[in-house]
Amino acid sequence: MRTQMLQSVLNDLRSSSGDIEGCAIVSLDGLTVASSLMEGMDENRVGAMSAAMLALGEKTAKELGRGRLDQVMVKGESGYLLLIGAGKDAVLIVITNAAAKLGLVFLDARRAAQSITDVL
Amino acid sequence: MRTQMLQSVLNDLRSSSGDIEGCAIVSLDGLTVASSLMEGMDENRVGAMSAAMLALGEKTAKELGRGRLDQVMVKGESGYLLLIGAGKDAVLIVITNAAAKLGLVFLDARRAAQSITDVL
Repeated sequence: MRTQMLQSVLNDLRSSSGDIEGCAIVSLDGLTVASSLMEGMDENRVGAMSAAMLALGEKTAKELGRGRLDQVMVKGESGYLLLIGAGKDAVLIVITNAAAKLGLVFLDARRAAQSITDVL
Repeated sequence: MRTQMLQSVLNDLRSSSGDIEGCAIVSLDGLTVASSLMEGMDENRVGAMSAAMLALGEKTAKELGRGRLDQVMVKGESGYLLLIGAGKDAVLIVITNAAAKLGLVFLDARRAAQSITDVL
Protein backbone atom coordinates (compact mmCIF):
# COMPACT_ATOMS: atom_id res chain seq x y z
CA MET A 1 0.00 0.00 0.00
CA ARG A 2 2.78 2.42 1.00
CA THR A 3 4.84 1.17 -1.94
CA GLN A 4 1.96 1.89 -4.31
CA MET A 5 1.52 5.39 -2.90
CA LEU A 6 5.26 6.17 -3.27
CA GLN A 7 5.28 4.74 -6.80
CA SER A 8 2.29 6.89 -7.66
CA VAL A 9 4.04 10.06 -6.41
CA LEU A 10 7.08 9.24 -8.57
CA ASN A 11 4.95 8.44 -11.64
CA ASP A 12 3.07 11.73 -11.25
CA LEU A 13 6.32 13.69 -10.86
CA ARG A 14 7.94 12.07 -13.86
CA SER A 15 4.93 12.60 -16.09
CA SER A 16 4.68 16.26 -14.97
CA SER A 17 7.41 17.16 -17.46
CA GLY A 18 8.95 15.53 -20.52
CA ASP A 19 12.29 16.92 -19.35
CA ILE A 20 12.33 14.63 -16.29
CA GLU A 21 14.15 11.46 -17.34
CA GLY A 22 13.82 9.74 -14.01
CA CYS A 23 13.18 10.06 -10.30
CA ALA A 24 13.74 7.80 -7.33
CA ILE A 25 13.39 7.62 -3.57
CA VAL A 26 16.63 6.47 -1.96
CA SER A 27 17.29 5.59 1.68
CA LEU A 28 20.20 7.32 3.39
CA ASP A 29 22.29 4.15 3.07
CA GLY A 30 21.88 4.17 -0.70
CA LEU A 31 19.14 1.59 -1.22
CA THR A 32 16.41 2.46 -3.68
CA VAL A 33 12.95 2.50 -2.09
CA ALA A 34 11.01 3.18 -5.31
CA SER A 35 11.90 4.53 -8.73
CA SER A 36 10.59 5.64 -12.11
CA LEU A 37 13.59 5.73 -14.43
CA MET A 38 14.16 6.00 -18.16
CA GLU A 39 15.06 2.67 -19.72
CA GLY A 40 18.75 1.92 -19.35
CA MET A 41 19.19 3.84 -16.08
CA ASP A 42 20.58 1.62 -13.34
CA GLU A 43 18.54 1.84 -10.12
CA ASN A 44 21.48 0.71 -7.98
CA ARG A 45 23.83 3.27 -9.45
CA VAL A 46 21.26 6.04 -8.90
CA GLY A 47 20.86 4.93 -5.29
CA ALA A 48 24.57 4.74 -4.56
CA MET A 49 25.45 8.12 -6.12
CA SER A 50 22.49 9.85 -4.44
CA ALA A 51 23.49 8.61 -1.01
CA ALA A 52 27.14 9.61 -1.53
CA MET A 53 26.17 13.07 -2.78
CA LEU A 54 23.76 13.59 0.10
CA ALA A 55 26.32 12.55 2.71
CA LEU A 56 28.99 14.89 1.34
CA GLY A 57 26.43 17.68 0.83
CA GLU A 58 25.45 17.38 4.48
CA LYS A 59 29.06 17.46 5.64
CA THR A 60 29.90 20.41 3.38
CA ALA A 61 26.87 22.45 4.43
CA LYS A 62 27.73 21.86 8.08
CA GLU A 63 31.49 22.51 7.75
CA LEU A 64 30.90 25.77 5.88
CA GLY A 65 28.24 27.03 8.27
CA ARG A 66 25.17 26.60 6.04
CA GLY A 67 23.26 24.52 8.61
CA ARG A 68 21.12 21.48 7.95
CA LEU A 69 21.13 20.29 4.32
CA ASP A 70 18.04 21.07 2.28
CA GLN A 71 18.89 20.46 -1.41
CA VAL A 72 21.75 19.58 -3.72
CA MET A 73 21.76 20.42 -7.42
CA VAL A 74 24.35 19.14 -9.89
CA LYS A 75 24.38 20.64 -13.36
CA GLY A 76 26.16 18.74 -16.12
CA GLU A 77 26.28 19.66 -19.77
CA SER A 78 23.58 17.05 -20.50
CA GLY A 79 21.21 17.86 -17.67
CA TYR A 80 20.53 18.30 -13.98
CA LEU A 81 20.43 16.16 -10.87
CA LEU A 82 18.32 17.40 -8.01
CA LEU A 83 18.39 15.92 -4.51
CA ILE A 84 15.82 16.89 -1.90
CA GLY A 85 15.41 15.38 1.55
CA ALA A 86 12.14 13.45 1.95
CA GLY A 87 11.63 12.82 5.62
CA LYS A 88 14.41 11.92 8.03
CA ASP A 89 15.59 8.79 6.32
CA ALA A 90 15.18 9.23 2.57
CA VAL A 91 16.00 11.49 -0.32
CA LEU A 92 14.21 12.19 -3.59
CA ILE A 93 16.45 12.39 -6.64
CA VAL A 94 15.21 13.91 -9.89
CA ILE A 95 17.17 13.52 -13.12
CA THR A 96 16.41 15.91 -15.98
CA ASN A 97 17.72 16.73 -19.44
CA ALA A 98 19.50 20.02 -20.18
CA ALA A 99 16.32 21.72 -21.44
CA ALA A 100 14.55 21.47 -18.07
CA LYS A 101 13.19 24.66 -16.54
CA LEU A 102 14.91 24.38 -13.20
CA GLY A 103 12.50 26.54 -11.20
CA LEU A 104 9.54 24.43 -12.25
CA VAL A 105 11.33 21.15 -11.57
CA PHE A 106 12.35 22.42 -8.11
CA LEU A 107 8.74 23.33 -7.36
CA ASP A 108 7.31 19.97 -8.47
CA ALA A 109 10.12 18.06 -6.75
CA ARG A 110 9.59 19.90 -3.46
CA ARG A 111 5.88 19.04 -3.55
CA ALA A 112 6.64 15.40 -4.33
CA ALA A 113 9.19 15.30 -1.47
CA GLN A 114 6.49 16.55 0.90
CA SER A 115 4.06 13.85 -0.28
CA ILE A 116 6.79 11.22 0.19
CA THR A 117 7.52 12.52 3.69
CA ASP A 118 3.82 12.17 4.53
CA VAL A 119 3.74 8.56 3.31
CA LEU A 120 7.01 7.35 4.88
CA MET B 1 50.03 40.48 -11.05
CA ARG B 2 47.81 37.46 -11.75
CA THR B 3 47.20 37.16 -8.01
CA GLN B 4 46.06 40.78 -7.89
CA MET B 5 43.72 40.28 -10.84
CA LEU B 6 42.17 37.18 -9.25
CA GLN B 7 41.81 38.97 -5.91
CA SER B 8 40.14 41.86 -7.67
CA VAL B 9 37.59 39.54 -9.36
CA LEU B 10 36.76 38.01 -5.96
CA ASN B 11 36.49 41.40 -4.25
CA ASP B 12 34.14 42.64 -6.99
CA LEU B 13 31.99 39.52 -6.76
CA ARG B 14 31.75 39.66 -2.99
CA SER B 15 30.85 43.34 -2.95
CA SER B 16 28.20 42.81 -5.68
CA SER B 17 25.77 41.60 -3.02
CA GLY B 18 25.53 41.83 0.74
CA ASP B 19 24.19 38.28 0.70
CA ILE B 20 27.55 36.87 -0.45
CA GLU B 21 29.49 35.99 2.71
CA GLY B 22 32.54 34.74 0.91
CA CYS B 23 34.06 33.48 -2.31
CA ALA B 24 37.27 31.68 -3.19
CA ILE B 25 39.18 30.15 -6.06
CA VAL B 26 40.27 26.62 -5.26
CA SER B 27 42.55 24.32 -7.24
CA LEU B 28 41.23 20.84 -8.06
CA ASP B 29 43.44 19.36 -5.34
CA GLY B 30 41.81 21.56 -2.69
CA LEU B 31 44.36 24.34 -2.29
CA THR B 32 43.03 27.88 -2.08
CA VAL B 33 44.40 30.13 -4.85
CA ALA B 34 42.72 33.34 -3.67
CA SER B 35 39.82 34.16 -1.37
CA SER B 36 37.59 36.87 0.02
CA LEU B 37 35.90 35.39 3.06
CA MET B 38 33.86 36.67 5.97
CA GLU B 39 35.88 36.86 9.17
CA GLY B 40 35.99 33.50 10.91
CA MET B 41 35.69 31.41 7.72
CA ASP B 42 38.61 29.01 7.40
CA GLU B 43 40.25 29.20 3.97
CA ASN B 44 41.64 25.66 4.24
CA ARG B 45 38.29 24.20 5.15
CA VAL B 46 36.62 26.00 2.24
CA GLY B 47 39.29 24.64 -0.11
CA ALA B 48 39.06 21.07 1.11
CA MET B 49 35.26 20.87 1.04
CA SER B 50 35.07 22.53 -2.41
CA ALA B 51 37.50 20.06 -3.92
CA ALA B 52 35.69 17.08 -2.37
CA MET B 53 32.29 18.33 -3.56
CA LEU B 54 33.62 19.00 -7.05
CA ALA B 55 35.19 15.54 -7.35
CA LEU B 56 32.03 13.77 -6.25
CA GLY B 57 29.85 16.07 -8.39
CA GLU B 58 31.94 15.16 -11.43
CA LYS B 59 31.69 11.47 -10.70
CA THR B 60 27.95 11.66 -10.05
CA ALA B 61 27.23 13.67 -13.21
CA LYS B 62 29.21 11.17 -15.26
CA GLU B 63 27.77 8.03 -13.65
CA LEU B 64 24.21 9.27 -14.09
CA GLY B 65 24.71 10.35 -17.70
CA ARG B 66 24.68 14.13 -17.22
CA GLY B 67 28.03 14.66 -18.98
CA ARG B 68 30.80 17.02 -17.96
CA LEU B 69 30.19 18.86 -14.66
CA ASP B 70 29.18 22.49 -14.89
CA GLN B 71 27.89 23.59 -11.47
CA VAL B 72 27.06 22.28 -8.02
CA MET B 73 24.66 24.01 -5.66
CA VAL B 74 24.16 23.03 -2.03
CA LYS B 75 21.28 24.61 -0.13
CA GLY B 76 21.37 24.51 3.64
CA GLU B 77 18.89 26.13 6.00
CA SER B 78 21.37 29.00 6.60
CA GLY B 79 22.39 29.63 3.00
CA TYR B 80 23.80 28.40 -0.28
CA LEU B 81 27.10 27.09 -1.59
CA LEU B 82 27.70 27.46 -5.30
CA LEU B 83 30.56 25.79 -7.15
CA ILE B 84 31.37 26.70 -10.74
CA GLY B 85 34.31 25.45 -12.78
CA ALA B 86 36.83 28.20 -13.61
CA GLY B 87 39.13 26.90 -16.28
CA LYS B 88 40.43 23.33 -16.37
CA ASP B 89 42.17 23.33 -13.02
CA ALA B 90 40.19 25.50 -10.63
CA VAL B 91 36.75 26.09 -9.19
CA LEU B 92 35.03 29.19 -7.90
CA ILE B 93 33.04 28.71 -4.71
CA VAL B 94 30.50 31.29 -3.58
CA ILE B 95 29.00 31.19 -0.08
CA THR B 96 25.77 33.10 0.54
CA ASN B 97 23.26 33.60 3.32
CA ALA B 98 19.72 32.22 3.07
CA ALA B 99 18.29 35.50 1.75
CA ALA B 100 20.36 35.42 -1.46
CA LYS B 101 18.51 35.66 -4.77
CA LEU B 102 19.94 32.55 -6.34
CA GLY B 103 19.43 33.53 -9.98
CA LEU B 104 21.35 36.76 -9.51
CA VAL B 105 24.18 35.07 -7.61
CA PHE B 106 24.43 32.42 -10.36
CA LEU B 107 24.69 35.16 -12.98
CA ASP B 108 27.39 37.13 -11.17
CA ALA B 109 29.28 33.96 -10.26
CA ARG B 110 29.26 32.70 -13.86
CA ARG B 111 30.70 36.04 -15.05
CA ALA B 112 33.37 35.95 -12.36
CA ALA B 113 34.25 32.36 -13.28
CA GLN B 114 34.74 33.48 -16.88
CA SER B 115 37.05 36.31 -15.78
CA ILE B 116 39.02 33.87 -13.62
CA THR B 117 39.32 31.45 -16.55
CA ASP B 118 40.73 34.29 -18.66
CA VAL B 119 43.34 35.16 -16.02
CA LEU B 120 44.45 31.60 -15.14
